[in-house]
This record gives sequence, structure tokens and C-alpha cells, in this order.
Amino acid sequence: MNDTFLRACRLEPTDSTPVWFMRQAGRYMSEYRAIRARHTLLEICRQPELAAEVTLQPVNRIDVDAAILFSDLLLPLDPLGIPFDFVKGEGPAIERPVRSADDVRRLTRFEPREALEHVLATIRLVRRELDGRVPLIGFAGAPFTLASYAIEGGASRAYALTKGLMYSEPEVWHRLCETFAEVVSDYLLAQIEAGVQAVQLFDSWVGALSVRDYREFALPHTQRIISAVAGSGVPVIHFGTGTATLLEAMTEAGGDVVGVDWRVALDEAWERIGTDKAVQGNLDPTLLLGPVHRMLDGAEAILRQAGGRPGHIFNLGHGILPETPVENVQALAHFVHARGA
Amino acid sequence: MNDTFLRACRLEPTDSTPVWFMRQAGRYMSEYRAIRARHTLLEICRQPELAAEVTLQPVNRIDVDAAILFSDLLLPLDPLGIPFDFVKGEGPAIERPVRSADDVRRLTRFEPREALEHVLATIRLVRRELDGRVPLIGFAGAPFTLASYAIEGGASRAYALTKGLMYSEPEVWHRLCETFAEVVSDYLLAQIEAGVQAVQLFDSWVGALSVRDYREFALPHTQRIISAVAGSGVPVIHFGTGTATLLEAMTEAGGDVVGVDWRVALDEAWERIGTDKAVQGNLDPTLLLGPVHRMLDGAEAILRQAGGRPGHIFNLGHGILPETPVENVQALAHFVHARGA
Repeated sequence: MNDTFLRACRLEPTDSTPVWFMRQAGRYMSEYRAIRARHTLLEICRQPELAAEVTLQPVNRIDVDAAILFSDLLLPLDPLGIPFDFVKGEGPAIERPVRSADDVRRLTRFEPREALEHVLATIRLVRRELDGRVPLIGFAGAPFTLASYAIEGGASRAYALTKGLMYSEPEVWHRLCETFAEVVSDYLLAQIEAGVQAVQLFDSWVGALSVRDYREFALPHTQRIISAVAGSGVPVIHFGTGTATLLEAMTEAGGDVVGVDWRVALDEAWERIGTDKAVQGNLDPTLLLGPVHRMLDGAEAILRQAGGRPGHIFNLGHGILPETPVENVQALAHFVHARGA
Repeated sequence: MNDTFLRACRLEPTDSTPVWFMRQAGRYMSEYRAIRARHTLLEICRQPELAAEVTLQPVNRIDVDAAILFSDLLLPLDPLGIPFDFVKGEGPAIERPVRSADDVRRLTRFEPREALEHVLATIRLVRRELDGRVPLIGFAGAPFTLASYAIEGGASRAYALTKGLMYSEPEVWHRLCETFAEVVSDYLLAQIEAGVQAVQLFDSWVGALSVRDYREFALPHTQRIISAVAGSGVPVIHFGTGTATLLEAMTEAGGDVVGVDWRVALDEAWERIGTDKAVQGNLDPTLLLGPVHRMLDGAEAILRQAGGRPGHIFNLGHGILPETPVENVQALAHFVHARGA
């Protein structure tokens, strides 16, 4: 098995820097668009054969060192009693946003091995198909990011409703995040049981918080999830965007790898995270739109900052954009590998 | 005249910390909504009597130490040949986005003293009405932020088209930004001539760039504007959001005051900016939604970080949100003043 990714998570030396890409399965691939032409995003997530097929598409075409489960951060919301859908061109839309103590009280804890069995079936299917080629990464959303969707009702810029609830009804906020933390812990443990070999916790929007607020409102809940999962022995990657001022606090939340975006230089980030942890990132995804020489130049700068030290996993600072040419993603993976560790 | 704001810009001691708020004239005030019920945003911007009235509304109701011209960042786009409008609930919409060398070539330089005479008339009117009560701040958008609107056609999350043009056609990008830099320099000088006593350059979305890209694609153009304006002797405030990793580079661009958002602690920010410059900020605007004790607690933390050192201008990290209760804004201004310098 290609274990460079798992070795890097554990800070062990590798022959070359492992690489995978957030949203490596997605609209930038014609194979994916062909499936999306016949199925909605949620249909793909909920049908193990389709989700497994999509998960494997980039592994078959791009020289990545890990597969990541094709799924969506929001899946746990539905069995909790927060139904949602994806509105064409507008992203997720929550039918009845969570905005009061009553809304939080109404949430129903669930057993992921039942309600999200389709995800676990996907994992088993992918593991079988991968047959040890590369490890499989599972994932879930962190409480702040999940709460922001549940409260805003979809994507947001200012997170005014989210922070409004946080500030004005902190007990309601904490109860909501505790619920998410319990559900996400169970869900990640179920994914691990089903066969994922690492997990990534996406706190994609947590960069909207000041350090002070992160410590009070997000850190304890994320910490709880990471502790719950840590006992399983699989590496935990903790990722967010716009987190330049949060790195120390995010590191305190635990985990083996901290994922950073392009706004912070990788060497600076790593120093602040501490060299006893691995680091993942951090090329600006827009660089993959081309031209190729700029993309490679950016990748080279990151590899130079990592300095060949064991524990760097090459990735982007956020997901691959739909407009990205597949050839550029292929060229980037090739470049990272060819350069050696 | 209340000159605490201008004194703080020049790092001179003041009896209390000066305070003003980005978007202090706006939808959170009933007086403003009453005018907006009868006029569009652009009508208000283009009619000096209306724009002056709106500029003065917060000065009459909130204990601020400066007025800021009511206007919009995008006004210079129209005379350049990039017409736009505001679409209800969706923000600005550019009719024909700028995406090619030809589009940039077609832009027409203009004389702000003619094309934007209504803004200058507003300034003269406001100065007369203020009659020395507090100084008046003028403003304009910085090249990166203006370019992002012109290229995307409106607001954006990933700035894929903006960065796409930047990376793939750097000469076109630089030509576009040079045009913006010239126009904005002229425009700010005309505002100063008309009577503004300080100017703020808004690079609101520049936090989307890595430090590397900021230095290559944004810094030289912003620097050019600030140098052009510096000779006039009025203080220049340079502001952006999500700039935690850009502060050193933004400081190099010049200016007297650097405005920072809530993601970075004010003391850390000031240290990095250098104590030979003033600093403006940086309360999270969502804290103004309440409860008041949390808002004041956040303000207190900022004032403590500033440590009473001359050169701190209290402000938010971004504009006042429309949902904000006026009483909270009043209470905040009062609190900052009552606490002494």
C-alpha cells in the first residue's frame, strides 16, 4: 500500500511529499459531471454505489496519495431534524433554521450506524475497490461550521445570526454545539469502524471568529470530538480557512495534523502549530486555474517552506474550484511527487 | 473643533479615545431608512442634499468624533465606463464585467471634478453644516477591491475570476489597477480640495490574497495612491478585512493609520504595524447586535490592548450591520469616551 500520507500524518519520513486535494472529486472532472447530469448531489451522497464511484474517480485519474470519501458536511443535519436541500447555484438551503432554545430542544439524537448507514456502506465499498492502493479519509463538519449553516439557513458572509445567537444565548449555543459534538463524534467513530484510515474535521468558516470567541464558543466542542476520536488510533486532521490568528488555539483542540489555507505562509504556520504536529496545505486553489508555471511556482514555494521535513501533506488551502482544468491538477500532483521529499 | 480623531491620526495624545464607525450612516438608523424608502442608494449618493443629510444623521445622534462621507466605493466605476446598479438584496451588479485586455483598453479616464462633482458638492455642504463640530473623512476603494467588483461583476467568495485574470494576464491586471490607482488618486485629491480632513482607502476584500500575491498584485498600486495623497497633508487610513497576515505589507504601502478587523488582537496588530503609525479598530460588528454587556466587554478588551497609547482610533472591524440597534451604537461610543484615553 502507498502509505506516504499516513506516514506523514505520524511525522515519519517519506520518499516524497504526499498529496491529496480537498474536493478532489467534483465538478471540475467530466466523469463527475456525467454522473451529476443524472443525479442530484444528495442522491450521489445517499447511494453507496454512486458515492463510491465518485470517490474513486480522482484516484483513478490523478496521482493522489489518499482518497477522500465523497459526501457532504451537512448529512448529519437531516437525521437530527434539520432537513435541507441544495438549491441550484445557491448552495445549501435549510428548511427551518435553528434559532431558538426550542429549536435546539427539538433536535433528535440519532444512531449514525442506522441513519447514515449509506455513508458507512460507501466506505466499505470504497475500501474494497481501493484494495490498499491508497488510504481512505473520512470527514465531518466541526460544530461552529455546522451551527453556522443550521442557524443562517445556508451560506453567509457576516454570520450575524450565528454570532447573534452565540452572544445573546450562550447556553443555547453551547447546547447546540454539544449536540453536534456528540453526533459528529459518533459519526466519525462509525466511519472509522467502517474502514476510513484518517479523518478530517472541517471547520471551514471558523475564521470568522476572533481568537477570544474561538476559545469560548468553538474550541471546547471541537476538542471534545477530537478526544473522542483520538482513542481509535487513526490520524485526525483539523482544518479551517482564514485561521491565521487561530492556529495556536486550533492546535490546542488536538489532532495530528493542522490544515491551513494560503493566507498564512506554511513555514510560519508550522512554527506556530509546533513541529510535533504535521501540517497540511496550502496552495491557493485559484492558482490551479492556470497558468501552469504560476501554479508550480506557488507549489515550489510551499515545498521550500516545508523544507523536506517529515510531516508535510501537500494540499490546497481550500477545495478545488469547479472551473479547474483536470490537467492542472494532474500536473500539480506529479510535480509534488517528482520533487522528492 | 473636536480634533481628537485628527490628533490620534498624528499619534498626539487625546483626552479620550476617538471613535467613529464604518457605515455609521446606514440601514440600522430609522432616519436613513426613511430616506431610503423614497430614494435608491445611488440617488442618495448622487444628490448632494440627500448625501449630506445622511452623512450628518449619525453625527447628530451618536457621539462620534468624525463624520464619514456617505457614498459608495463603486461610484468611480461608472465614469470609467463600467456601469453598475444595486440589485435589491443582492448587492452591486456590474452590467458588463471587465475581463479582457480589450475591456481594460476601453476604460475612459475622467476628471473627478466633473464626473463626480456631486460628491465634491456633498463634501462642501457637509463641511458647512458640520461647522467644525467634527472632522469629515472622505474615502475610496483600493485597486484590488475595485478590480474584484469590476471583474467578478459583483460580490464574490473565492475571487476566482479576479485571481484568474491576475495570474493569467498580469499585464492586463496591472494596467487595470494602474487605471484605478490614477483615478482614485485624483478622486481623493479632489475630495481633499473640497474639504475632507482625512481619507480612508478601503481594501475591504484584499484578505483573499496570500502575502506573496499581495506584494505582487496589490501593494504597488495602493502605494501609488497613498504617495499621491500623502503630499496633501491629510491623514490616510488604510483598511482591509482578513488581513492578519498582510499587516506588514499593508504598512509598507504607506499611510498614517492602519485599520484592522477583529480577527487579529489589536496589541499584536499594532506591534506588527509599528508604533510609529496609528491603528484603527477593531470590534466585531456582530457584537453590536447585543447583549450590551458582551459588546462593552469586547470594547474594554480592545481599549486595554491599546493601553491608552496615543494613536488608537476606536472603530469596528467592518461596517455596522443593518440589524444593529441604534442604542447599542450610542452606548458603545459613550463607553469608549467615558473610559478616558
